[in-house]
Amino acid sequence: MGVGKTAPMALPTEHRQVLIASLPNGRLRTEDFEVRSAPLPVPGDGKVLCRTVAITIGAGQRAGLQGSASYAGAPEAGRVMGGTGVAQVVSASGGRLRVGDLVWGQTGWQEYSVQQPGALTVLDPSVLAADHLGVLGLNGVTAYFGVTEVGRVQAGETFVVSAAAGSVGHVAGQVAKALGARVVGIAGSDEKAAMLVDVLGFDVGLNRKSEDFRTAFRAATPERIDVYFDNTGGDLLESALFRMNQRGRVVCCGVVSQYDTSTPGPGPRGVPGLLVNNRVRMEGFLVFDFEPRYDEARRQLSAWMSAGSLRALTTGYSGLESAPQAFVDLLAGTTSGTPIVQVWEA
Amino acid sequence: MGVGKTAPMALPTEHRQVLIASLPNGRLRTEDFEVRSAPLPVPGDGKVLCRTVAITIGAGQRAGLQGSASYAGAPEAGRVMGGTGVAQVVSASGGRLRVGDLVWGQTGWQEYSVQQPGALTVLDPSVLAADHLGVLGLNGVTAYFGVTEVGRVQAGETFVVSAAAGSVGHVAGQVAKALGARVVGIAGSDEKAAMLVDVLGFDVGLNRKSEDFRTAFRAATPERIDVYFDNTGGDLLESALFRMNQRGRVVCCGVVSQYDTSTPGPGPRGVPGLLVNNRVRMEGFLVFDFEPRYDEARRQLSAWMSAGSLRALTTGYSGLESAPQAFVDLLAGTTSGTPIVQVWEA
Repeated sequence: MGVGKTAPMALPTEHRQVLIASLPNGRLRTEDFEVRSAPLPVPGDGKVLCRTVAITIGAGQRAGLQGSASYAGAPEAGRVMGGTGVAQVVSASGGRLRVGDLVWGQTGWQEYSVQQPGALTVLDPSVLAADHLGVLGLNGVTAYFGVTEVGRVQAGETFVVSAAAGSVGHVAGQVAKALGARVVGIAGSDEKAAMLVDVLGFDVGLNRKSEDFRTAFRAATPERIDVYFDNTGGDLLESALFRMNQRGRVVCCGVVSQYDTSTPGPGPRGVPGLLVNNRVRMEGFLVFDFEPRYDEARRQLSAWMSAGSLRALTTGYSGLESAPQAFVDLLAGTTSGTPIVQVWEA
Repeated sequence: MGVGKTAPMALPTEHRQVLIASLPNGRLRTEDFEVRSAPLPVPGDGKVLCRTVAITIGAGQRAGLQGSASYAGAPEAGRVMGGTGVAQVVSASGGRLRVGDLVWGQTGWQEYSVQQPGALTVLDPSVLAADHLGVLGLNGVTAYFGVTEVGRVQAGETFVVSAAAGSVGHVAGQVAKALGARVVGIAGSDEKAAMLVDVLGFDVGLNRKSEDFRTAFRAATPERIDVYFDNTGGDLLESALFRMNQRGRVVCCGVVSQYDTSTPGPGPRGVPGLLVNNRVRMEGFLVFDFEPRYDEARRQLSAWMSAGSLRALTTGYSGLESAPQAFVDLLAGTTSGTPIVQVWEA
């Protein structure tokens, strides 16, 4: 049932939200969340009411549920789960936003939200919501700056990415490939490893769970590793450190191996000895540091998509109530690409 | 008994050398070395004979004795122990070097050595051999580039250095201080900690072995750490990682906590999670990467010495046969500054 972009709409009196039922202890479970109905919020002066079209989930959000965050609005039991989404403006009060505008913002896991106009980005409605949230969203932009600005990969170099079938990883590998690198992706199953090569054009796909992974990893990096784009930390990071080339770069982007637990493991052996011996630079970054350059990244990523050298991978979920399952699946590694929870078909 | 710099000298027929008796297994002992007499070497065509004046020892040389090195001339039992020294040319054959020239090179632990002229650097004879080997030698130059080029410390930032009373550390702290940083040094005794402040002008000196070290470390870094110059690895590195500021830099220079053992410990917790969250850059380097700029470093270090803002710290040993003890002391942390083994009073 389509709704015309600028047609006035009858608003319900209630809407659904997903709450944090309890901060997870150990592995995340769908029971850590609960769905409830709440009165539709009323936008105050200068604010707008938005209807959520789709949300995405990042593995890093699991870290926010550790209960250690202390900023205002930090996740806690009884709060609406936070999250990034695409939404449509359904009531506006004469500012730069119009009813029907498609926007990007922190919608949270709920059907409606009240937003400050300044916190929203107006989107091109001809682009899929899934692409706005995935390859052109923060995941794609993270991959872009991680590869180009932190890893500074050069044509001919060997580029390795972990969680390679993930929301950031699948873009990172394709960006490195577009820049002329030899790309090796590490994923969590034979199917994903094959997909990296067959669908995304990686040079090699490896399954980190296969018995001969160490041998295969060495064989896949005969000239060692120039840039390792790390989404996992843990054992994979340790293995990669032992394969780094002189002046290699380790892009520390995520730590998915450590998110879904309350007892993080030890650090990787080889730190700092191997960093010294091989003059390796290991650098963490957050995509927000590059905010003034987001448009540049999106233009380049769009150009690669148009040219066919960048394919967007998503795992779709239908309905707000499926968000907890999508989060559990993401952390368990059973999703590919960007998880997209479709909340409403605009 | 002085010998005139250009006077002809009567050469002995034999000289003393310190051999590696056996590659150390576990903690280094003086018994891992032995002193022997050997016939004086005869320089072949185009080479020069040098008499060693003094040698220095770096903690990193312990890593070379692990038996894993595979390059030609790698340390092995029965070989003369390698090392950097200052020497005087005692026989030359018409090239650019003259008898009496003071030179810097890989003399090894022996009284005489045959050298390729191209591998020697001619030194200013008005500067002490100890300074050529210490604050103006590779230790000082390492500190200089580690602070300025890898750590890129800025005035007003908090700079922390481990093994701060060591050959590299005591220069690194003073360089950071000269550049306007607030400098905290971590050493292995109360005496050294006090010396850092009283003699070298650090803002704070800490004893890592004191019971309240963690509390003192936090108190000494109220604005957290912008640059951590790591000479140790291990627990101190881990502690520092938890104190890093946003966009902090960890200069990975040495791993003295791991050298004198055959079983290195685990890596530091917090890698890579803290690197991501705080956008920390952690970078290993070797001084040789900056070889084209050694002169620049030495000029600046000399200028600071002349201005009184850089003091050279050395621990002196007398006689070639004391070199093994100096090495053991260095690894045990009982030396301060650069260990200098005086082999001959020129």
